[in-house]
Amino acid sequence: MQPRASHLPDIQKTPDERGIDIDEVGVSNIRYPIAFPLRDGGFCHTVATISMRVSLPHYEKGTHMSRFMIALQEKVDVLSPSRVFDVLSELLRLLDADTAYLDMSFPIFLKREAPVTRLAGLLDFECGFKGVLKKDGTYDKVVEVRVNAASLCPCSKEISAYGAHNQRSRITIKVREHGELIWFEDLVDIAERNASCALFPILKRPDEKFVTERAYDNPKFVEDIVRDVAVDLLAMLRDERIRYFFVSSNNFESIHNHDAYAHVERGELGSLLSGFSHD
Amino acid sequence: MQPRASHLPDIQKTPDERGIDIDEVGVSNIRYPIAFPLRDGGFCHTVATISMRVSLPHYEKGTHMSRFMIALQEKVDVLSPSRVFDVLSELLRLLDADTAYLDMSFPIFLKREAPVTRLAGLLDFECGFKGVLKKDGTYDKVVEVRVNAASLCPCSKEISAYGAHNQRSRITIKVREHGELIWFEDLVDIAERNASCALFPILKRPDEKFVTERAYDNPKFVEDIVRDVAVDLLAMLRDERIRYFFVSSNNFESIHNHDAYAHVERGELGSLLSGFSHD
Amino acid sequence: MQPRASHLPDIQKTPDERGIDIDEVGVSNIRYPIAFPLRDGGFCHTVATISMRVSLPHYEKGTHMSRFMIALQEKVDVLSPSRVFDVLSELLRLLDADTAYLDMSFPIFLKREAPVTRLAGLLDFECGFKGVLKKDGTYDKVVEVRVNAASLCPCSKEISAYGAHNQRSRITIKVREHGELIWFEDLVDIAERNASCALFPILKRPDEKFVTERAYDNPKFVEDIVRDVAVDLLAMLRDERIRYFFVSSNNFESIHNHDAYAHVERGELGSLLSGFSHD
Amino acid sequence: MQPRASHLPDIQKTPDERGIDIDEVGVSNIRYPIAFPLRDGGFCHTVATISMRVSLPHYEKGTHMSRFMIALQEKVDVLSPSRVFDVLSELLRLLDADTAYLDMSFPIFLKREAPVTRLAGLLDFECGFKGVLKKDGTYDKVVEVRVNAASLCPCSKEISAYGAHNQRSRITIKVREHGELIWFEDLVDIAERNASCALFPILKRPDEKFVTERAYDNPKFVEDIVRDVAVDLLAMLRDERIRYFFVSSNNFESIHNHDAYAHVERGELGSLLSGFSHD
Repeated sequence: MQPRASHLPDIQKTPDERGIDIDEVGVSNIRYPIAFPLRDGGFCHTVATISMRVSLPHYEKGTHMSRFMIALQEKVDVLSPSRVFDVLSELLRLLDADTAYLDMSFPIFLKREAPVTRLAGLLDFECGFKGVLKKDGTYDKVVEVRVNAASLCPCSKEISAYGAHNQRSRITIKVREHGELIWFEDLVDIAERNASCALFPILKRPDEKFVTERAYDNPKFVEDIVRDVAVDLLAMLRDERIRYFFVSSNNFESIHNHDAYAHVERGELGSLLSGFSHD
Repeated sequence: MQPRASHLPDIQKTPDERGIDIDEVGVSNIRYPIAFPLRDGGFCHTVATISMRVSLPHYEKGTHMSRFMIALQEKVDVLSPSRVFDVLSELLRLLDADTAYLDMSFPIFLKREAPVTRLAGLLDFECGFKGVLKKDGTYDKVVEVRVNAASLCPCSKEISAYGAHNQRSRITIKVREHGELIWFEDLVDIAERNASCALFPILKRPDEKFVTERAYDNPKFVEDIVRDVAVDLLAMLRDERIRYFFVSSNNFESIHNHDAYAHVERGELGSLLSGFSHD
Repeated sequence: MQPRASHLPDIQKTPDERGIDIDEVGVSNIRYPIAFPLRDGGFCHTVATISMRVSLPHYEKGTHMSRFMIALQEKVDVLSPSRVFDVLSELLRLLDADTAYLDMSFPIFLKREAPVTRLAGLLDFECGFKGVLKKDGTYDKVVEVRVNAASLCPCSKEISAYGAHNQRSRITIKVREHGELIWFEDLVDIAERNASCALFPILKRPDEKFVTERAYDNPKFVEDIVRDVAVDLLAMLRDERIRYFFVSSNNFESIHNHDAYAHVERGELGSLLSGFSHD
Repeated sequence: MQPRASHLPDIQKTPDERGIDIDEVGVSNIRYPIAFPLRDGGFCHTVATISMRVSLPHYEKGTHMSRFMIALQEKVDVLSPSRVFDVLSELLRLLDADTAYLDMSFPIFLKREAPVTRLAGLLDFECGFKGVLKKDGTYDKVVEVRVNAASLCPCSKEISAYGAHNQRSRITIKVREHGELIWFEDLVDIAERNASCALFPILKRPDEKFVTERAYDNPKFVEDIVRDVAVDLLAMLRDERIRYFFVSSNNFESIHNHDAYAHVERGELGSLLSGFSHD
């Protein structure tokens, strides 16, 4: 006969004497299939890497790790911003915690048409979402995209008789929401329109001519990219659509074996989200 | 007015004088959403990393990279073994090549029940598929899974008064098909039943007791894991269900900062697939 | 005849009208050989991944990327804490900046003896260093180590008739210095002594018996590891040896395919270092 | 009193009844500091990731993992090709094996001067070495480099009114030695001179003008890079300096989010090295 849970000691529930509150404890590096609603309708089926954590008061020895997985498995067949809230609520309830955290990253796939031939294909963008829910109902969210695009060096163009070095850049945008939902696609649009040129899944020769000339006509330092994105995000900050933003660009320089990097950060990130990026 | 492709020179089609056939040329590191049929019915929506290549004869300067993406985008809404064949056929046709290669890896998610409480959740397994199609119709395939499982050290158990070190292990199985389709799930089963214990997404205390004791009752060296898997695969080789196998186990030792590793390889991999694993 | 720099326009120096100060701009992902002094004497030759950045006022279009590499190449034959200060000073001077940042990570190798046979070998630990220097001379530093060790589950031990699951854990400690130099080795010691058992490069059978039994006698939840490390770090905080600490443990669970995680953070990180961990 | 090894049972030495020879068994993912002799004199201190394996006959249950680490720790203070031979010899002796394998990868740092200003700095290249020693004295070696360089697209240049897309490429060269030692630096030279332009650690404006124009004057498809490298390696093959080569280029396309790839392989890799690249 198998043992029943009630017969087995529950070490986690024993009292702890060290007097140390644990900021965050839980499970990390869970891979899980999700479906995400898209701005233009429909869903994007994808795979997320997920972490979930709660605060643990000093007098409890341990949390119950299996309950995190139960909260996830019951809730995220189709994950959407409202469902993240449901998972966090369930974590607060199941684990009797003051604060619950959920952090996930996943690629999304958006249709992109070639600029001349209009041949369409899917392009991938790395997205992230961090949510924090407190027992008093305070709910705080950071939305994040990583968008690859092309950058062409203004200095190289100016000083050279012909040509200019260009390369793939990774533009990262993070915003803290201000109530209103911010679509990943809106942030992707901001990143793409402020690079020297967007990337495309399919380019025939007329398209390749277009993007080559477009990038040459539109040179940008790594500083220009983050400033031009910041101009758009500052407008959202002024309109109180967001409470905070971070934008960086990392240019995989085609003339060096290291990268060029810049970032601009404005607004209030808030103490609720401060612990997320440390490990 | 935009230029038309017919007005733009096609450098790729110019003749090449170096006299060097290119073994494989194409596109790599494409991320793409796919849906894969499961052995027990239904589909697994997931995200693949894909490479596609063709052979290029010495007298042609270059291949046409956009056609790879066109072949993929038209074919793989729901990718299945027969669809990979379709993509490869399309590559042969669009690129007028002698040989076409497709290589992809992706996680799949399978339902796993806790051994005592029967609480169910999804567990992820890394899969791979390599296909080669020649103009004469020869079609060759290698199927691959990477399964994480628990291993418990027989030496540590034997020499210690109590306890035994154990750890997560990554078991890799690759088989070359012999006509018949081999399900990823069949290979996952072989890996899981030959480890000290399988992994589970959700374990309550009665389950945790079960898996702890199961692993202790079933100690395995890294050598034991690959030999026990090999016994099962040798049976498939004798039955001509497969033409080749490779099995390795990499144990993330809990007492060291390096890993223990072993592999066994039998049968004929075949020259068609020899170039795949070099880069 | 080659052009001279003085004849080529300097686009970076042109004025910028967007009115946006850039928090940090520079170079990242530089790999570079370094030699680091060890607490017990001698140097550890190793390879660092380095980023360097400065603040850029709104009225300047761009920074001069080559000067970062020049500052590095001239200074870091043998990198030590005082040399990082020199590189940062040189960045402030060469780039006429208000603030300069240097961020690097690298493995160090420390001798470890097997607990019974005393066979010695080298064990690797991942280290990091972040330094910020302002024009007014303010110098702020964060020191970081990532130590792999063994953890054995108290619940699994308590509820099982025999055995207990155990695994490799990665313990991360970050401290903000308070004037006094903190050795990486001191933080490594704290991490190792608070795990269920340390790792070793070489273990013969009598050693393996020792570490197996030692871990079984010393079970620790992920919560226990971060609390026990926190007790040691709180003492350093009280003594004003440090101004801030962060400790996390990530346990690569041998019974799951995901990890268990916890962290504790105390003290003041300070605004100077807030931008580091965002990308 | 501590137990002595002679009192503890040696499970690894018990006979095995499954009848399965193990191709390779040992330790992997060891990080270790090494010093490597350079072609132009002096040593490069760096950090290697090392795997070591031996064959295991069907009648032995297990190998002795600690002996691998002992063989390494005694031998590789300053690793050189002759020292790898010593480690392999020691593995054959300590483990009474028929075949011993050592596989390692590490960055090396070479001085590079800017093309106009001659400012010098260190540039990193990823290297690898695989050695196999058999009991009968047969010693086989594969040497490998990964060199990043710039590629500029001939099609983009030809069809565009101005500019041309360019990007970082990773060129991989592997050669099987034919008795004679092949320097990593010789292979690096071959890769760099066959790209559109080499990379540099420090570039002032006159240098940036030079490399921009050099790449534009020297456009290369991914096919051109591997063919031009292959021409050089075919000459070494004809001269019997090497017995086999593999060259690939992976171009991180600045207009796409995927890469362009090509490879050429010639000569005989040999059965001794066939098992290396599978996992």
